[in-house]
Amino acid sequence: MSENAEKLPRQPVPALDEILGVPFKVLDDGFVRVVDYMGSDQAIVQAARVSYGEGTKKISEDRGLIRYLLRHRHTTPFEMCEIKLHVRVPMDCWRQWIRHRTASVNEYSTRYSVAIDAAQLTSPGEWRTQATENRQGSAGNLDQKQGAELSRKETVLHRQAREFYDECLAAGVAREHARRELPLSTYTEAYWKIDLHNLLNFLLLRMDSSAQQEIRLYARLIGEEIVRKWVPFTWEAFLDYHFNSLHLSSLEIQVLQAIGAGNQKEALTRAENFGWLEKSGKSLKRNRERAEFEAKLRLFNLPTPW
Amino acid sequence: MSENAEKLPRQPVPALDEILGVPFKVLDDGFVRVVDYMGSDQAIVQAARVSYGEGTKKISEDRGLIRYLLRHRHTTPFEMCEIKLHVRVPMDCWRQWIRHRTASVNEYSTRYSVAIDAAQLTSPGEWRTQATENRQGSAGNLDQKQGAELSRKETVLHRQAREFYDECLAAGVAREHARRELPLSTYTEAYWKIDLHNLLNFLLLRMDSSAQQEIRLYARLIGEEIVRKWVPFTWEAFLDYHFNSLHLSSLEIQVLQAIGAGNQKEALTRAENFGWLEKSGKSLKRNRERAEFEAKLRLFNLPTPW
Amino acid sequence: MSENAEKLPRQPVPALDEILGVPFKVLDDGFVRVVDYMGSDQAIVQAARVSYGEGTKKISEDRGLIRYLLRHRHTTPFEMCEIKLHVRVPMDCWRQWIRHRTASVNEYSTRYSVAIDAAQLTSPGEWRTQATENRQGSAGNLDQKQGAELSRKETVLHRQAREFYDECLAAGVAREHARRELPLSTYTEAYWKIDLHNLLNFLLLRMDSSAQQEIRLYARLIGEEIVRKWVPFTWEAFLDYHFNSLHLSSLEIQVLQAIGAGNQKEALTRAENFGWLEKSGKSLKRNRERAEFEAKLRLFNLPTPW
Amino acid sequence: MSENAEKLPRQPVPALDEILGVPFKVLDDGFVRVVDYMGSDQAIVQAARVSYGEGTKKISEDRGLIRYLLRHRHTTPFEMCEIKLHVRVPMDCWRQWIRHRTASVNEYSTRYSVAIDAAQLTSPGEWRTQATENRQGSAGNLDQKQGAELSRKETVLHRQAREFYDECLAAGVAREHARRELPLSTYTEAYWKIDLHNLLNFLLLRMDSSAQQEIRLYARLIGEEIVRKWVPFTWEAFLDYHFNSLHLSSLEIQVLQAIGAGNQKEALTRAENFGWLEKSGKSLKRNRERAEFEAKLRLFNLPTPW
Repeated sequence: MSENAEKLPRQPVPALDEILGVPFKVLDDGFVRVVDYMGSDQAIVQAARVSYGEGTKKISEDRGLIRYLLRHRHTTPFEMCEIKLHVRVPMDCWRQWIRHRTASVNEYSTRYSVAIDAAQLTSPGEWRTQATENRQGSAGNLDQKQGAELSRKETVLHRQAREFYDECLAAGVAREHARRELPLSTYTEAYWKIDLHNLLNFLLLRMDSSAQQEIRLYARLIGEEIVRKWVPFTWEAFLDYHFNSLHLSSLEIQVLQAIGAGNQKEALTRAENFGWLEKSGKSLKRNRERAEFEAKLRLFNLPTPW
Repeated sequence: MSENAEKLPRQPVPALDEILGVPFKVLDDGFVRVVDYMGSDQAIVQAARVSYGEGTKKISEDRGLIRYLLRHRHTTPFEMCEIKLHVRVPMDCWRQWIRHRTASVNEYSTRYSVAIDAAQLTSPGEWRTQATENRQGSAGNLDQKQGAELSRKETVLHRQAREFYDECLAAGVAREHARRELPLSTYTEAYWKIDLHNLLNFLLLRMDSSAQQEIRLYARLIGEEIVRKWVPFTWEAFLDYHFNSLHLSSLEIQVLQAIGAGNQKEALTRAENFGWLEKSGKSLKRNRERAEFEAKLRLFNLPTPW
Repeated sequence: MSENAEKLPRQPVPALDEILGVPFKVLDDGFVRVVDYMGSDQAIVQAARVSYGEGTKKISEDRGLIRYLLRHRHTTPFEMCEIKLHVRVPMDCWRQWIRHRTASVNEYSTRYSVAIDAAQLTSPGEWRTQATENRQGSAGNLDQKQGAELSRKETVLHRQAREFYDECLAAGVAREHARRELPLSTYTEAYWKIDLHNLLNFLLLRMDSSAQQEIRLYARLIGEEIVRKWVPFTWEAFLDYHFNSLHLSSLEIQVLQAIGAGNQKEALTRAENFGWLEKSGKSLKRNRERAEFEAKLRLFNLPTPW
Repeated sequence: MSENAEKLPRQPVPALDEILGVPFKVLDDGFVRVVDYMGSDQAIVQAARVSYGEGTKKISEDRGLIRYLLRHRHTTPFEMCEIKLHVRVPMDCWRQWIRHRTASVNEYSTRYSVAIDAAQLTSPGEWRTQATENRQGSAGNLDQKQGAELSRKETVLHRQAREFYDECLAAGVAREHARRELPLSTYTEAYWKIDLHNLLNFLLLRMDSSAQQEIRLYARLIGEEIVRKWVPFTWEAFLDYHFNSLHLSSLEIQVLQAIGAGNQKEALTRAENFGWLEKSGKSLKRNRERAEFEAKLRLFNLPTPW
């Protein structure tokens, strides 16, 4: 740094300033809104250039540098940006959210105040059915008729739970005690502050198709409506190098090498050595790792050697 | 370290080994048990002596060193001990527990498995009433008769919620979806691993009388049944220098100095300057900071100057 | 939150905006300057009130709330403020600084760039002498004459080290290799970003008289020139309730109770039971904990009972 | 968990117990040794199965589960293992090491004790030269003769620095002050404790060929001599799915799809759209992202379409 260091005005991001404080709706009664933020694509570049001992460059190079940093997992400059959101989320969803330990949180206290009088309700067409191949997911929905019956009962149950909660409070029961009768679908609110590096990790996991639908809706909204406006170069690079990228394991690389060399026999030998080709009668046994590799070959338009 | 470094056998703590895996009951259906641990009072001393560049000393000095470290907030050696617990806790209580971000956690997944069929029930004599002076606490209990009626209704509500959950699953609803109908009192289980420094922070906050009763019961059990056996010198020092210690603010020190010097007038002047002695009519206005100081004076058997 | 949530403009802190980017000098060639920040005293209040489920109040109550939060260690709202500094620090000092793990850091890379050509020099009157009672501190200075001789040699040694570094680079040695010849006094630079809660912890430790002089100078400057302007209510409360406060241990409280009650005999008995009054010949043995308590009694203008 | 929970004896890892406390040499005067550990491959499985709500299975399934967890980045069970190392490292190398913020550290204090009298020396054949294509790395060595001259000067410089340090101490200068004259090559020692998840992150970065040679030697030793013995299934999976894996970006996938489909024209179009094929005269401009992709194609034995 030169002795006569220039003054540094804060760099606003006009596209984000425009939506500051504006709630984006999620689910039946949830929302996300930006309360404050610090930094921008330029702040990432600025921090990276401290490491490199270099001054400011032109914008076209900024994009390239950000893409380079994200592609090669140079993560520290992305910690230089920070965002604070106000969110309203069902507690069941919040239980997943709060597992991300790198955020700062102030949650609405149901010890101090009466619980928010809203719980997530399922409309008749939205009852998700259990996935069979993925033991922890859902796939498809119940039919409307069955759903209508469950929705009706859900509404009754929520009302009963709330009435009992209110009855407890009226009888003088402490709020901290009474709240335990409420369903997990009850909404809570929080201020949630996190740096961009850790936010991208959150989005990578929670925008993923394996994430539960509720948190996925929040994550996608945060990504597409907020992060995209805040740090457009970073968002683009995140999609290209993380969210839409894929991994090839050492095993997959070895089989792919044989395929690329046109050596089908070697490809088979390698796959056999990896235990991918065990038989059950005449057909191949289910093997999760082989299935994952086959899906990648299909994606690449390459033939499966077995 | 000398060139020919001795081999270092692991140092077990027999008193803790004895209770390894044994569940201690908490609440109506919860428990805590130690699954594994690393380190001991001696490991803390060993780590501290790396910093000081000194070799092993005798046990009597170990106690003194540990007390010194804890008294003066030299916290890093306490991070050298680690413990892993298996806990079963109502989700409402777990929501507070998980706010401690420095632990490692694997929680029972109600996406993957059917939710534990147990929810915390309140017996007739245990309905806590809202504290008035402390907006976020409880104080005393409802009478048995009123409590009996609430307990009856609570049991019914829990049963209805569980029946609806089971009905949802039977209808093919995904576990991740159906669980949101369960009450916050539903039990969950987790492996919870934390280092001793951060565990002491957890205990300091959660053993405190201002903590909610449920988590306080867990915290006290962890402290008195587990930490006390694991690291007895540290536990004793923790009680002496943290849990049973108190703080005097700069303001309190200044008034205390005047009291100690026998200068009542100066004590009053100082308290007035701090805004502690505003009047409402003839009596002093409620002032929380003054009230805290008065409680300390009473504890010290010193007279209140106003 | 109401449905029609107001837009939330970012709340600048004019007193801090004024010094944005301006370097404050520290040591012979170091500096600290604010690059960016997020939040203010009001942001702390805002976050705390989410927990309490309440709306905005008037400023006079903001001060009281902040003081309450800090006095009672409600730390999470202080995480809602964030600051990013650009610092230039000798590597020896940086080695202490970087031990605070809760910050985000981008440091100047001496793998990528030629090392900064500056190392901290000691002027003749500034050679600090070893403290005797505090094994890890310093106390007083060498006399000018002795100091002048050491300063002369230090300058020569630094020049030799730098010349060798330059010679290595000229010979084609990699920067990552050559840098190891430089002295620990060599300056480095970094962007350092941290939230207010963790910054206050840093300041509490590093502004303390037991901290090494170099880092203490940086810490005091950050506190008095930056934090004081940024969050004046918080800074005042930090001084009152943390930096200028003191702890009384359970043992000290017990002896103080006897003193307060005018029961000198009981005070002695208690002190004896704590092992504070062991004799060596006719006088009391050195006992660090007793000495700490005596210092507190002197501060309170209370008599020592032994 | 059943009511009558079995007692849980600690599960030792005999292969690791055998090397407990034994120093492995690194560099000219450094070492790494295991001081203590907690957990094993089985502990990872155990923690994962809490999440899944299932009991213990047979060992063959343990390996498969660990591989599944690591392949799909289910990282929390790996946090359930912890290891504590005693390391001796040049300070220059330690400056990189300490950047990993998720470890617990107690470092030898040169405020409290006289600095370790050893600094890393470079033998004549080991002077690494600056890499040209990688601005932050090294490539190859100086010739022996040039190296011999530098080694001689390095030895002199180290001796001078140490003599000046000793002279300062003899004159009464505080250790905390005098140490700043020592070169960055001076050895330090520390206890370093970290969980397995974060250790694998450390190894992924520091075993990499782009890491500086010194820390790479430590990292490889920790991986191959320690982690491999401690958690053999995890180590194997780490190599297969992380260390020896590779990433394909969304851009690379798109070009690979065209190559797989045999559509060379489309492959070129896509690469052009990505800006990979800009010309400078008749040949392609240097483009780092294209070069990375070409290297992957060569690895897969697939033809480059341009």
